[in-house]
Amino acid sequence: MGRDGGDYAAGAKRPGGFQFAEDTVVMPLNIGTHVDALCHAWYDDRLYSGYLGSTLRSATGASRLGVDKMPPVVTRGVLLDLVRLRGRLLTDGEVITRSDLMKAANASGLHLEPGDAVLIRTGWLEAQKKVSSPSLNSEPGIDLDAAQWLADHDVALVGADNFAVGVLPFADSTVFPVHQRLIRDCGIPLLEGLRLDQLVESGRHTFMFVASALPIAGATGSPLSPVAIL
Amino acid sequence: MGRDGGDYAAGAKRPGGFQFAEDTVVMPLNIGTHVDALCHAWYDDRLYSGYLGSTLRSATGASRLGVDKMPPVVTRGVLLDLVRLRGRLLTDGEVITRSDLMKAANASGLHLEPGDAVLIRTGWLEAQKKVSSPSLNSEPGIDLDAAQWLADHDVALVGADNFAVGVLPFADSTVFPVHQRLIRDCGIPLLEGLRLDQLVESGRHTFMFVASALPIAGATGSPLSPVAIL
Amino acid sequence: MGRDGGDYAAGAKRPGGFQFAEDTVVMPLNIGTHVDALCHAWYDDRLYSGYLGSTLRSATGASRLGVDKMPPVVTRGVLLDLVRLRGRLLTDGEVITRSDLMKAANASGLHLEPGDAVLIRTGWLEAQKKVSSPSLNSEPGIDLDAAQWLADHDVALVGADNFAVGVLPFADSTVFPVHQRLIRDCGIPLLEGLRLDQLVESGRHTFMFVASALPIAGATGSPLSPVAIL
Amino acid sequence: MGRDGGDYAAGAKRPGGFQFAEDTVVMPLNIGTHVDALCHAWYDDRLYSGYLGSTLRSATGASRLGVDKMPPVVTRGVLLDLVRLRGRLLTDGEVITRSDLMKAANASGLHLEPGDAVLIRTGWLEAQKKVSSPSLNSEPGIDLDAAQWLADHDVALVGADNFAVGVLPFADSTVFPVHQRLIRDCGIPLLEGLRLDQLVESGRHTFMFVASALPIAGATGSPLSPVAIL
Repeated sequence: MGRDGGDYAAGAKRPGGFQFAEDTVVMPLNIGTHVDALCHAWYDDRLYSGYLGSTLRSATGASRLGVDKMPPVVTRGVLLDLVRLRGRLLTDGEVITRSDLMKAANASGLHLEPGDAVLIRTGWLEAQKKVSSPSLNSEPGIDLDAAQWLADHDVALVGADNFAVGVLPFADSTVFPVHQRLIRDCGIPLLEGLRLDQLVESGRHTFMFVASALPIAGATGSPLSPVAIL
Repeated sequence: MGRDGGDYAAGAKRPGGFQFAEDTVVMPLNIGTHVDALCHAWYDDRLYSGYLGSTLRSATGASRLGVDKMPPVVTRGVLLDLVRLRGRLLTDGEVITRSDLMKAANASGLHLEPGDAVLIRTGWLEAQKKVSSPSLNSEPGIDLDAAQWLADHDVALVGADNFAVGVLPFADSTVFPVHQRLIRDCGIPLLEGLRLDQLVESGRHTFMFVASALPIAGATGSPLSPVAIL
Repeated sequence: MGRDGGDYAAGAKRPGGFQFAEDTVVMPLNIGTHVDALCHAWYDDRLYSGYLGSTLRSATGASRLGVDKMPPVVTRGVLLDLVRLRGRLLTDGEVITRSDLMKAANASGLHLEPGDAVLIRTGWLEAQKKVSSPSLNSEPGIDLDAAQWLADHDVALVGADNFAVGVLPFADSTVFPVHQRLIRDCGIPLLEGLRLDQLVESGRHTFMFVASALPIAGATGSPLSPVAIL
Repeated sequence: MGRDGGDYAAGAKRPGGFQFAEDTVVMPLNIGTHVDALCHAWYDDRLYSGYLGSTLRSATGASRLGVDKMPPVVTRGVLLDLVRLRGRLLTDGEVITRSDLMKAANASGLHLEPGDAVLIRTGWLEAQKKVSSPSLNSEPGIDLDAAQWLADHDVALVGADNFAVGVLPFADSTVFPVHQRLIRDCGIPLLEGLRLDQLVESGRHTFMFVASALPIAGATGSPLSPVAIL
């Protein structure tokens, strides 16, 4: 903290009686509950829409597709609850397929519509509570074909309660294939590290969903606190 | 940036074709568009609700009333547009009184209700576009009596397009009296640095308002991107 | 980095042909090879010389005994090589006593003199090369009586190749007793995390020693790169 | 600060009586009193020794010529005091030529020798004390020909009490020509922001000079506190 109650306890002055505290954070932008901007991942030196990878530079940040270009998302949210479907938390490396997503949707009696924000519950975050130092080498998540199914429904955003949406380890000879398909090919931002517990408790599978990123100039992502309005 | 397009231009490997960028920010928590948590300001060594000022320490942050304790705000938003009322941007040091707020409400045909999020347009942020280095010693804003009027209506939150909600310079022998009254006495968080231009363009004076802070443990505030849903 | 070769590879301009790179660090001040300033440790709310602990505040740093007040050290350096004495790296928790220090001095045929900078080799840093995640709960180091022996010789500075100079775990019912005695009682700064390998290779046990801290205003310590001139 | 006297004033526990304070800095590496590593400046995509500019990347820092590769400097220091020569502080944009350096050396009866560390006093830093916000667009300093003269003497290091060693503004159609010549062509590191007042007071023009950078992995420079031993 740059100023706090300890300062006053130690004798700091309080002109007009006023006391205050303030602090500063150092924060990587692609951890915690965050959104990956469309400039976060690409291949063949081309970002989504064909912008050049060289538009992302140390000195200037992302001049294209930065998180500051991303409008707030206000849309229907849809929860696909794989934990409820399987009756247990998914395990590291466990694949969620197109068929799994369809079953989860059916189990809730819902149909994906264009513009939906799809939130996927794998149980990964819940499982971490019992783990002292989480591995970032494996997690349950969707495979490339499941990602394609979501993209085919023209969803606005895909989120999950894990750290990379897609399953880890990746399928053979691929690296972050879900990132490549959804972010780079389809321009669909990813929300990672979602805390879904309150939403799950509510029993609701559709809801109004609001997520708005910090407009950090040229950044590759932003921490945020999405809201499901029930 | 910790990795960017320049790295690849300089020859970085791309296993499986995957390329990505990520960055980190260093960010004070009470600047930009942000919310002041209830632990941000106090007097007589007592925070809102009577918690001790000594609950805010360097080593631990705020153990009471930190921004991580602040739930998302989803409520009716109300715009009190002083710029429209006066037909010009307000000037530094210009006081907004209880009567001014009442007139602005009347001009829009609206009545404050308990739980409203009240957003006040002073024009300060718009005026800064023409200023090379903004002074943080003066700004237009509400006085203590106007703040009391808002508190009497039991509003949930007060925001403004300036940097401290209250007018600067302060009335004689007071220091941040609006902070002391609203945050410390009444437990009403303040939103500062609001960008109201799109809302003003819409012509709307009431709307659904969603604001959710980052749950930074023990922090005195949080940058955020509030949304007016029209 | 804030600018680097990747920027140019990605197409950044180079006016007048000039290209450059620059970067920024975020760095705790009491880790790595560093000196602990006299404001780093104390007890009974009193620092060395009787200054109040409340002179160290979040908003202002240390107004007394900060590392910015510490002049460069240019003096005779003395290596007390416990590894050579025992014929092996010392183990975690292994105590170095007054008698051990005396034997190490005798083995090198040297006598401590007022103003010496005493460097103690425990082998801890060398041992860490084989350790994946070092424990900061135990290390070989001097006990309180050995520290007193050094203070009795009126040395200018005590350094070691471990992270806290004193042995960990501490003797029963004490916490950092060596810090309390040397820094707080005697005003002797501590150098921690020394890399002694080149000095040891030289076979020299006395040398000219130069150590100068960064003058960071009000800081509790500073990273530095001390030099033994042989 | 991450812990300070205010914490204890506010009631923090002190096991075994021990109290301590510690803090963290965020610090650009090429400001203040600092050394520019040989990877800091280059042209034609080639660093000193012919290494590629693309060896400097966001994700990895400088894999060649980083400040961590720079050994401590222990050599004869030589002060060339242009302020004494002219009888006044030099002014912004004032050029120091080869002839000026020769006169300053002659005035002190000294000859440059290979391996010398040459420190140039322009008076810029002294002049800043009276300036509220220093301009970084102009300063007194050496021109390219003076830099060449220093390089011809095979000096080990060139330092100055200004922020860029070379004069600003640059000669027509050049950008940091002194950086390009000394760092890139000749492999001579630059020391900037030197505080020479104590040295000047001593009246000495030659001395033992010790400067050692922090071994920050892959960094383009380092803050340091050089010492003149008189």
